[in-house]
Amino acid sequence: MIEVTRRGVIGGAVAASAVGAIIPAQTRAAGPVASKQAVGFYHYNVGDIQVTVVTDGARSFPLPDGFIANAKKEEINAALQTAYLPPDNVTIYFSPIVVNTGGKLAIIDTGYGPGAATQANSTSGLCQANLAAAGIDPKSIDTVIISHYHGDHVDGLLDAEGKPSFPNAEIKVPVVEHQFWMDDGEMSRAPKGRMEGLFKNNRRVFSGEILKRVATYDWDKEVLPGVTAISTPGHTPGHTSYVIASGSGKVFVQSDVTNNPALFVRNPGWHASFDQDGKMAEDTRRKVYDMVVADKLLIQGFHYPFPALGHVEKDGSGYRLVPIFWTPKL
Amino acid sequence: MIEVTRRGVIGGAVAASAVGAIIPAQTRAAGPVASKQAVGFYHYNVGDIQVTVVTDGARSFPLPDGFIANAKKEEINAALQTAYLPPDNVTIYFSPIVVNTGGKLAIIDTGYGPGAATQANSTSGLCQANLAAAGIDPKSIDTVIISHYHGDHVDGLLDAEGKPSFPNAEIKVPVVEHQFWMDDGEMSRAPKGRMEGLFKNNRRVFSGEILKRVATYDWDKEVLPGVTAISTPGHTPGHTSYVIASGSGKVFVQSDVTNNPALFVRNPGWHASFDQDGKMAEDTRRKVYDMVVADKLLIQGFHYPFPALGHVEKDGSGYRLVPIFWTPKL
Repeated sequence: MIEVTRRGVIGGAVAASAVGAIIPAQTRAAGPVASKQAVGFYHYNVGDIQVTVVTDGARSFPLPDGFIANAKKEEINAALQTAYLPPDNVTIYFSPIVVNTGGKLAIIDTGYGPGAATQANSTSGLCQANLAAAGIDPKSIDTVIISHYHGDHVDGLLDAEGKPSFPNAEIKVPVVEHQFWMDDGEMSRAPKGRMEGLFKNNRRVFSGEILKRVATYDWDKEVLPGVTAISTPGHTPGHTSYVIASGSGKVFVQSDVTNNPALFVRNPGWHASFDQDGKMAEDTRRKVYDMVVADKLLIQGFHYPFPALGHVEKDGSGYRLVPIFWTPKL
Repeated sequence: MIEVTRRGVIGGAVAASAVGAIIPAQTRAAGPVASKQAVGFYHYNVGDIQVTVVTDGARSFPLPDGFIANAKKEEINAALQTAYLPPDNVTIYFSPIVVNTGGKLAIIDTGYGPGAATQANSTSGLCQANLAAAGIDPKSIDTVIISHYHGDHVDGLLDAEGKPSFPNAEIKVPVVEHQFWMDDGEMSRAPKGRMEGLFKNNRRVFSGEILKRVATYDWDKEVLPGVTAISTPGHTPGHTSYVIASGSGKVFVQSDVTNNPALFVRNPGWHASFDQDGKMAEDTRRKVYDMVVADKLLIQGFHYPFPALGHVEKDGSGYRLVPIFWTPKL
């Protein structure tokens, strides 16, 4: 046992200064500052099923006029401030998940995909890079499950060259959703602007090789063993959530029942501009969240910040997301 | 524009089934289930300073008798349940941080380190692997800053062979803390058991090469440019927190002002068995948290779950940790 007195402590400090002299100068310059965030993937097990959350990144933009039909800019800014977020700015996060059932390897929703990743200064389209970081080969994905037909969920079906990103996958889509967007009558009645653009984008994505691989699925049935499709319309007509269940494990995969939790989990009555039927989306949201709260269900949210997993509890007139504690070892 | 009718949708499903036949059988088996969690590091910038959170892992154990001096097992279990955590079990998370000031590259606390990582089924000692994942060479670290002398903060100074893990680093330690643990009178008066073990461990770690590199630092002064040491005693006599500040950025690095937030942020009056002076630790905790709440300061907690960064707000008689939203792009 060494002996250290008060004098010894001061001596230690002096010795340390002396050590400086023998450390080569080049090792004393700080390393470079990172310009890229850490890879974003996270594993967790639901019984025998493994889920891997794979972030596609995020997009930030100035708070648009009319972003929320029934909330004033000041109310939105107050909600942002409550969540320690900057005012007049919205960030939307994207987190597809990979579901490994043992027999099947599926991805639920695709993110904006590799096309977005190739754009200058892109902050989305990271899903394929994060899949690679997680050691998941897109060629090994045998099923893509689509929750609904918005670009952040379907554009990643195609790579930057317009070829299938998951070349060996069957593409399972909600029958109601597919029928709506592929219906020429609906398209002809679509308002100019956003809705017209969505129809055009969906006709672009769901054509050729992609359309050949499409198989429709029904609500209240298993899309894969252990993965049941749940009807949660409003955000879009065929918007779908999922329950993944195995053994005693269960997680509710909400898709877009809410978007950014700081705004829409806290204020379930707010109607976002991207909710096609605001009232129906709100009814769905309240129904889902009351169920998730009552059952203390784990909930995975496509638009929650990575790893996009937590529990929801009642808080005043709204709800609060309680993120899970990151498990560093499986 | 392709034409898809209701009939076409059903046709799509049939086509998809046909596709199955042309996909080679070997690509249809699900990939292996991951047995390792994702790497755990996370970058954020505080003005011109970059912080990289690097998890050392976590340790879980059955809730010990007397774990909290002034809380009953039922109260602890109620707090765990409130946080959606399993009863009768405690998990302690460890998150050292790397601080790159441009001129200096420092790590604050070391985790259990590579010695722990080599133990069978270890769930801690991951810091060096995560440093490597973050592209940070331990040889490039020029300063190790120690907050206090507990094994999860200092054991990682040594590698599995007992050599310095950061071979080119000066080791900066709080003068009060160093004097306490190196004082033979204090050691001779230490109660048998935990306190005696801590003295022995600190004499083991702070000897030889490590002791030669030690330099003491004082409270209320900069340990590094932009990193100021703050007196937060109670957990140990010389326990130290930090304020990292640059430009308009600021983060309070709390070290062990609280441990697991589900228990001790929510219940600041609870005295954990590892708080050397429970009353003083509580006074420090309330003072720090009232300040952090009032100033809406970002707070980094060594024992918060990864990435161990958030804001704190008042909640009834205690506080609540609101984790930051993960930023997928810097």
